[in-house]
Amino acid sequence: MQPRTLAELADHVGGRVVGDGGRTITAAATLENAGPGQITFLSNAKYASLVNKTRAAAVVIKNEMSSPAALLVVGDPYYAFTQIVVLLYGHRKHPPVGISPKAHIDPSARLGRDCHVHPFAVVCGDVRIGDRCVLYPGVFLGPGTVVGDDCLLYPNAVVYDDCRLGARVIVQANATIGQDGFGFATHRGVHHKIPQIGRVVIEDDVEIGSGAVVERGALDDTIVGQGTKIGDTVTIGHGTRIGPHCLLVPQAGIAGSVRIGHHCVIGGQVGIVGHIRIGDMVRIGAQAGVIGDVPDGAEIIGSPAIDAGKARRAYALIETLPGMRRSIKDVEKRLARLEESDA
Amino acid sequence: MQPRTLAELADHVGGRVVGDGGRTITAAATLENAGPGQITFLSNAKYASLVNKTRAAAVVIKNEMSSPAALLVVGDPYYAFTQIVVLLYGHRKHPPVGISPKAHIDPSARLGRDCHVHPFAVVCGDVRIGDRCVLYPGVFLGPGTVVGDDCLLYPNAVVYDDCRLGARVIVQANATIGQDGFGFATHRGVHHKIPQIGRVVIEDDVEIGSGAVVERGALDDTIVGQGTKIGDTVTIGHGTRIGPHCLLVPQAGIAGSVRIGHHCVIGGQVGIVGHIRIGDMVRIGAQAGVIGDVPDGAEIIGSPAIDAGKARRAYALIETLPGMRRSIKDVEKRLARLEESDA
Amino acid sequence: MQPRTLAELADHVGGRVVGDGGRTITAAATLENAGPGQITFLSNAKYASLVNKTRAAAVVIKNEMSSPAALLVVGDPYYAFTQIVVLLYGHRKHPPVGISPKAHIDPSARLGRDCHVHPFAVVCGDVRIGDRCVLYPGVFLGPGTVVGDDCLLYPNAVVYDDCRLGARVIVQANATIGQDGFGFATHRGVHHKIPQIGRVVIEDDVEIGSGAVVERGALDDTIVGQGTKIGDTVTIGHGTRIGPHCLLVPQAGIAGSVRIGHHCVIGGQVGIVGHIRIGDMVRIGAQAGVIGDVPDGAEIIGSPAIDAGKARRAYALIETLPGMRRSIKDVEKRLARLEESDA
Repeated sequence: MQPRTLAELADHVGGRVVGDGGRTITAAATLENAGPGQITFLSNAKYASLVNKTRAAAVVIKNEMSSPAALLVVGDPYYAFTQIVVLLYGHRKHPPVGISPKAHIDPSARLGRDCHVHPFAVVCGDVRIGDRCVLYPGVFLGPGTVVGDDCLLYPNAVVYDDCRLGARVIVQANATIGQDGFGFATHRGVHHKIPQIGRVVIEDDVEIGSGAVVERGALDDTIVGQGTKIGDTVTIGHGTRIGPHCLLVPQAGIAGSVRIGHHCVIGGQVGIVGHIRIGDMVRIGAQAGVIGDVPDGAEIIGSPAIDAGKARRAYALIETLPGMRRSIKDVEKRLARLEESDA
Repeated sequence: MQPRTLAELADHVGGRVVGDGGRTITAAATLENAGPGQITFLSNAKYASLVNKTRAAAVVIKNEMSSPAALLVVGDPYYAFTQIVVLLYGHRKHPPVGISPKAHIDPSARLGRDCHVHPFAVVCGDVRIGDRCVLYPGVFLGPGTVVGDDCLLYPNAVVYDDCRLGARVIVQANATIGQDGFGFATHRGVHHKIPQIGRVVIEDDVEIGSGAVVERGALDDTIVGQGTKIGDTVTIGHGTRIGPHCLLVPQAGIAGSVRIGHHCVIGGQVGIVGHIRIGDMVRIGAQAGVIGDVPDGAEIIGSPAIDAGKARRAYALIETLPGMRRSIKDVEKRLARLEESDA
Repeated sequence: MQPRTLAELADHVGGRVVGDGGRTITAAATLENAGPGQITFLSNAKYASLVNKTRAAAVVIKNEMSSPAALLVVGDPYYAFTQIVVLLYGHRKHPPVGISPKAHIDPSARLGRDCHVHPFAVVCGDVRIGDRCVLYPGVFLGPGTVVGDDCLLYPNAVVYDDCRLGARVIVQANATIGQDGFGFATHRGVHHKIPQIGRVVIEDDVEIGSGAVVERGALDDTIVGQGTKIGDTVTIGHGTRIGPHCLLVPQAGIAGSVRIGHHCVIGGQVGIVGHIRIGDMVRIGAQAGVIGDVPDGAEIIGSPAIDAGKARRAYALIETLPGMRRSIKDVEKRLARLEESDA
């Protein structure tokens, strides 16, 4: 933590100070909890009323508003705040352990410069690792895996044989990449295992959450596109290809052989069946169940998932079903009476 | 396993024997499978008919009923049975391994008395561990973590840097505490990682299930309150605060910045969106999708979740939609006929 | 990879060649991507149109159709293709590491012949392991566990004390077998842990996916029947018994004390409440919520789950609720008008 003046921070993010730019900022905090010397931000309109009574030294904000704090006005407050947090705190510092003699590294493996391999990490035969990678304890890199520069593999992350990780990939603890896909041929009531000969290819700048699972391909590779972020305990089926810059929120589950475009946002606990195509820039609401192709730019929710606008109107009416049912019965009775008198 | 007489057990739990208190009890079993010498219990009314034909030596029960077994009558049979199982069997015995020379413990770490650290466990710098803790193989305690007395960390459980565990915390195998929250600022189509500078604070007597994931806070700490029990593969988002004595059933998923009160029961596969408040003593049914604040004492189900009574009536009617639709069409036809004849 | 002629492959699977049986097959691929020298298959009718324009050397298929490729006609193309992939590629080859001196094996453990135990695997006291088993790094076999012949335990798989694995069981990375069930007796607002004295019994030929979790029984054992395949991050509650030859697709969650018959297919993200019975050959669609007993042979979907045919008709109508509501209001208005004129 290196303190900065508000003016320095504004300069760093290309923003404008309203108030005293000379204030020293020593920490970042939430709008709710920020106190003297701390900087916070407003990006969710829900919390706007807190700006007026914050004890923070400064608020990063899009539009000027009344506040006891100084304001740092900028076009994208959340991104600017992120840049400030990186400047003040930096990303996690990793203990400089070098190559621990307690790690197990096959002699045929090749490691780049300035790697840190912790005790009890295992690097199998024919592995290639780029520069400045960190392998925490219990990490397993299977035979023939290739890892790019600046990757971080947290404790007990597992990468099976022959998988590929690009540069700057982060794999959180207990995540698994490249285990066998859920592929069985059922013949006369017995499920026969199909060798999964595809790999997993993780492109640059991907992050994989704790407990997440990416299956290797049955035949074609499973691919996670550049810059895509995958949440905790997400599962991705064999042969699925996810485009660049997607967000998969924790506990989403994608079956096999799905094609997903770029810049999609897939909500928590969403399920997507196999063998379908999701277009680009699609937004899928939490818990949705997607059972068919989805065009570019669609926003869908519900199970089965339909257009979000339509779904919000429709699902909200489920609650009124008992009333609707009563109305129909009532209508039928009144109608019968009329028909009788009409006869 | 130390056999006891039924009278001794009744004494232990403050209950009353109906029948022969001198019977020797050698084991505990389910009502369905209990045989001679075994004690069982009835707490789920669904199984009441089995009491009449059980082969058990004794049944722990709330209200006297006809049975070939002796009865141990007590106000809370399930709790009494739990006390009996603890008396007869005790909790798991842990192999007394001491501090294994095959563990990797940073010299700056401080361990309390009578700890057991298994081979291949890793304790990083500046860690503090209380008395009588057990660290199974593959456990990772990141730099600066603090662990209270009498904690159990099962194989491959991971605790990231600076997190706090209270006393008597149990972390089951492959669980992860304190990995980075799913926090990214999306700017011009690229997702930028936000350093997650908050910690996870696990209070006393919490249990965390296998494969569960508790994200560290982006700014504020993620907090799991005293005595709360978290099931397998549950995920808890960054900055969420869960009150004391809650139950989170396996596969539930809580997004970030949620506030949950005390004594809540959150069913299996429930999803809760971010930035909302769940009151005290709230009950949320399995698979519910919670998208707004929930008042104290509410019972909700469904996705989107609504009042349980209302929802049970409403969701059951979805099945009748085809009939309702036909009725409406029929009514419209009859109405048109009447209107015509009326014209 | 050992190339074969198409005629040899047809012979191996008991099929019939239409076209040139002398073609050399060097690899297997998907219908979409197969090129010269490669064999592919058609089993999903959705892809039938690709057969006509494939660049593959051969297609395994049920019914003859027009194709530039040679055909291998056989009754069960997916199973035949599986046999061919096994013939061409074999299953994963495991590095022959023997018993690594870096593994930790209790002197009281007994291992069969030709086992391979990797560095940092842990085998506790009184464990018995059959012949030809492979324990990857970070595997933990708790005290008293019993493992049959030809089992594969991938990195960081954990088996708790006293559990049983049959022959040819595969446990993928980071899976957990036998941790304590989610069992607590709540008394005066405090959740008391119930010792889970049952075990997990995994029968022959079972596969357990990465991150999956099988709880040990509270009293009765948790049982996974022969040949059943369990997907990634599936959770199975304490005391549940699953019959032989079931498929549990990733992220399904089964509560405790459930009985499931044989040859059931349980879709992704399905939730099943505790203490119910699922019959034989039941099919449960993805995301279903099962809250009551299910008879043999039923096909159910939805949450709450109902008969699939009924549900497909009903759930599709949720979308029409706003229209139905308008119709009812309209009908009521017209009816009131008629009643008035009738009065």
